[in-house]
Amino acid sequence: MEQKTLLIECADAKGLIAQITNICYKHNLNITRNTEYVDTDSGRFYMRTELQGIFNDQTLLSDLRLALPPGSETELVSTRKKRVVILVTKEAHCLGDILMKVYDGSLALEIAAVVGNHPDLAALTAKFDLPYHFVDHNDIARTEHEQQLQTVIESYAPDYLVLAKFMRVLSPDFVARYPNRIINIHHSFLPAFIGAHPYRQAFNRGVKIIGATAHFVTDHLDEGPIIKQMVTNVDHTYSAQAMAKAGRDVEKNVLTKALELVVEDRVFVHGNKTVIL
Amino acid sequence: MEQKTLLIECADAKGLIAQITNICYKHNLNITRNTEYVDTDSGRFYMRTELQGIFNDQTLLSDLRLALPPGSETELVSTRKKRVVILVTKEAHCLGDILMKVYDGSLALEIAAVVGNHPDLAALTAKFDLPYHFVDHNDIARTEHEQQLQTVIESYAPDYLVLAKFMRVLSPDFVARYPNRIINIHHSFLPAFIGAHPYRQAFNRGVKIIGATAHFVTDHLDEGPIIKQMVTNVDHTYSAQAMAKAGRDVEKNVLTKALELVVEDRVFVHGNKTVIL
Amino acid sequence: MEQKTLLIECADAKGLIAQITNICYKHNLNITRNTEYVDTDSGRFYMRTELQGIFNDQTLLSDLRLALPPGSETELVSTRKKRVVILVTKEAHCLGDILMKVYDGSLALEIAAVVGNHPDLAALTAKFDLPYHFVDHNDIARTEHEQQLQTVIESYAPDYLVLAKFMRVLSPDFVARYPNRIINIHHSFLPAFIGAHPYRQAFNRGVKIIGATAHFVTDHLDEGPIIKQMVTNVDHTYSAQAMAKAGRDVEKNVLTKALELVVEDRVFVHGNKTVIL
Amino acid sequence: MEQKTLLIECADAKGLIAQITNICYKHNLNITRNTEYVDTDSGRFYMRTELQGIFNDQTLLSDLRLALPPGSETELVSTRKKRVVILVTKEAHCLGDILMKVYDGSLALEIAAVVGNHPDLAALTAKFDLPYHFVDHNDIARTEHEQQLQTVIESYAPDYLVLAKFMRVLSPDFVARYPNRIINIHHSFLPAFIGAHPYRQAFNRGVKIIGATAHFVTDHLDEGPIIKQMVTNVDHTYSAQAMAKAGRDVEKNVLTKALELVVEDRVFVHGNKTVIL
Repeated sequence: MEQKTLLIECADAKGLIAQITNICYKHNLNITRNTEYVDTDSGRFYMRTELQGIFNDQTLLSDLRLALPPGSETELVSTRKKRVVILVTKEAHCLGDILMKVYDGSLALEIAAVVGNHPDLAALTAKFDLPYHFVDHNDIARTEHEQQLQTVIESYAPDYLVLAKFMRVLSPDFVARYPNRIINIHHSFLPAFIGAHPYRQAFNRGVKIIGATAHFVTDHLDEGPIIKQMVTNVDHTYSAQAMAKAGRDVEKNVLTKALELVVEDRVFVHGNKTVIL
Repeated sequence: MEQKTLLIECADAKGLIAQITNICYKHNLNITRNTEYVDTDSGRFYMRTELQGIFNDQTLLSDLRLALPPGSETELVSTRKKRVVILVTKEAHCLGDILMKVYDGSLALEIAAVVGNHPDLAALTAKFDLPYHFVDHNDIARTEHEQQLQTVIESYAPDYLVLAKFMRVLSPDFVARYPNRIINIHHSFLPAFIGAHPYRQAFNRGVKIIGATAHFVTDHLDEGPIIKQMVTNVDHTYSAQAMAKAGRDVEKNVLTKALELVVEDRVFVHGNKTVIL
Repeated sequence: MEQKTLLIECADAKGLIAQITNICYKHNLNITRNTEYVDTDSGRFYMRTELQGIFNDQTLLSDLRLALPPGSETELVSTRKKRVVILVTKEAHCLGDILMKVYDGSLALEIAAVVGNHPDLAALTAKFDLPYHFVDHNDIARTEHEQQLQTVIESYAPDYLVLAKFMRVLSPDFVARYPNRIINIHHSFLPAFIGAHPYRQAFNRGVKIIGATAHFVTDHLDEGPIIKQMVTNVDHTYSAQAMAKAGRDVEKNVLTKALELVVEDRVFVHGNKTVIL
Repeated sequence: MEQKTLLIECADAKGLIAQITNICYKHNLNITRNTEYVDTDSGRFYMRTELQGIFNDQTLLSDLRLALPPGSETELVSTRKKRVVILVTKEAHCLGDILMKVYDGSLALEIAAVVGNHPDLAALTAKFDLPYHFVDHNDIARTEHEQQLQTVIESYAPDYLVLAKFMRVLSPDFVARYPNRIINIHHSFLPAFIGAHPYRQAFNRGVKIIGATAHFVTDHLDEGPIIKQMVTNVDHTYSAQAMAKAGRDVEKNVLTKALELVVEDRVFVHGNKTVIL
């Protein structure tokens, strides 16, 4: 008995659930969890089905594709742990929380490597016996730096890149190589305080709540599909530094929660939004 | 084109979703929203399906019952607004919030009447042109009082009773007449502070968070299936009275949210718990 | 024995608390609650002191002013309930919550009148036996409309104006007449989604949390000092309408909470921020 | 220029703040932050004052004690980092979060050592170059085990003991040696689900919110003064295991937040409650 997850996205049509679940039934597969969503504005249908049984992947997928409307996207995902490469700069808390959660078994993913544009987090990474690559951005062009990053990253063939407080803006060219596969943590409650120094911006504005946002990276700075957001209360006694400190817990919690959703294949990208099943 | 909601509870079995959605498809009904849940411990299957089309209720239900395992519970619910009778004592905030939300269209239910064991809230009820029945509990036995309550209540044939800070414990006999149809707001984060004076108890314990719990009423005081809980932060500067005041917003918010779930037919009772689809 | 609240704002200096509390002590006043705050960036000192005793207001204030640095602002506030005029358009929930909370004693203020640029909320206001003024904005210039509003408002000599979903932007001239005395509820988590249709903006951006912000009104749209913010979770199943509905509870809760802080004289305005003591 | 924090607890009396701040002023000390609280029920006065200047500790304290009511408790605390010994069993997440936060500078304390009644967390502790002591409880009496724990602990002369998911109940004798100096994380929203297996209890009760509580340990199981509580939402899809997993983030966040308050000398114990200034 195996466990796999079926992911379907297609144009909505009457009888879709019946057709799909019939095919699973004929394949003698048991549905242990099933979630669907229809976006009525766009007429798109999304379905995530956890299945148990003996799988014939090819036949199942071709049966489904035959039954579904043209242009459907159908995927059958095994329970293999996803591989991620983590990009960092100097701040330890997000990387640290991922390391700890993978270490204690709370987060089911495989960290292939950590890559930093500063050497600061090499020591922390080494504690957990993982490779750290320092790819310096000084004295070289952005294109060259990204080329070097990519070479390192590709050597690990990751499923996802995680920007765990990686403080460099990635070029559209780089981003285009990993569509919906780069997860970033932005240290504000987006779309408030896009760009640099969001805690300073939040302090200057006198907000009473700060937040953090995990999102997929697209060409447009801090504008990719949002996966998860969390907030915490602040007040007038908080300096910009105190806000940043309070924000660290939110950042790490929201990033690892978003990663959990992503590696469990629960996040569909729908235009500039996410559907989480 | 009508809209109805299909509610199914039965023993779990392979192929259930396929069978049910097939039947809907054969009846030419469109599924606009569908949620299922399997409780693996008990092997129970729950499904809530919003359907659009031309309904032949009898055929649809008999087709379903034929296909489902024995002992299934199947219901096809129209979009008619649920009728509720609200029971109160002296405190206005929960009743007031329900009145306001029904008035402004946020809460889709019909208030048939308000019944109080004190006359205090008659004036508030009258502002919204609804009948108020003062059923005094003084100088009569509990049985007699509940008999009088029941007579008034039954004259309105309500779908649900709402205890909006009704400060009398109802007898098992009374409760038995309305299985899973009485919704209470308890002014604590159950199961903490069961019974009387929960804010005084919370104050004495020095908690840093207080809450409120909306639940179905069963024989056992404050132990029925929980529908919704919410909390708010407090600190050492809060007296028991200040906690009670802060708690009022939580109470009213959690009660109206629970009512919203109930009247949308989203709450299944599963033993002493709820499944909310 | 009377109760009064002393409010002080001045340049920070060594020994301020000692000087102020000494003067209170010499006046034989008992401090029942005291809070101070020093904004180290600007070097401003803020203090709020609840006092009990027999007050000689003139002597106390002149003793304080003599002791404090030049340019100090000193106020001795009685426990008289603040008078507010509420401005509305069509949506009932914020007005309704204020009416209910004043009715049930949760919010200690006096509603002098409700003024609307539409007639829709006259009936709700009448339920609570309060005057409603419909001041139509159609067919007249903005200046003329604001002049009419002001005439009505001034006839009630309010301490504060409350914009309870008043959907007209007020001119700088109008705002200038009520510095730090107009409280608005904006239906977003500012500074996200400034301006019109914030729920539509939030829906389009695919956020996972929505919020509301109570703030003082200044010349700049949605940019005045923030008093209180609250949020609630949403997900991909929420349409813009569903977000707006979920937001209503947040809006009313945040507005009445902000009003509570303001009428208890706990909110100091500090540049474009608030200090809440 | 030094920074110290003055902590005062005494019977309330008129003029206390004036007397205390006068004495600070005469010592030429600048108050950078000051908070007081009077518990009116018990008539106790609490004050926490951050001071800057040149300190003559002995004179300052004797001046204060002379001025304050008999029975006052007065302490002048330096900014030296507090030393803690952490007690653990098998679960890594709370220990891991403390290790990470001390490592990245978010939590200003010194971990003297980690002591476990199982060897499991020795490897994690070693990663951060800290001593780990495995004190086995098997095959010896509780008294003997606690004696061994105490010997190890005392060798580090800690300011506080932190029970970071230490799953042994400590005897009253042991607890008595560290009054208000043992901080525990209990994995429920106390007083709900006291004792063993709180997530199992929460699951069985069908709650919609789970929480965690950091508190000082007293003789009575899970009944000591509460420092901090946090919660997270759950629903019917959560097994007891899933609740436990969701709870881990809450546990670690609430424990490190409580530690932050304690090591900043912000927590006063007041009977069975805390006052946090």
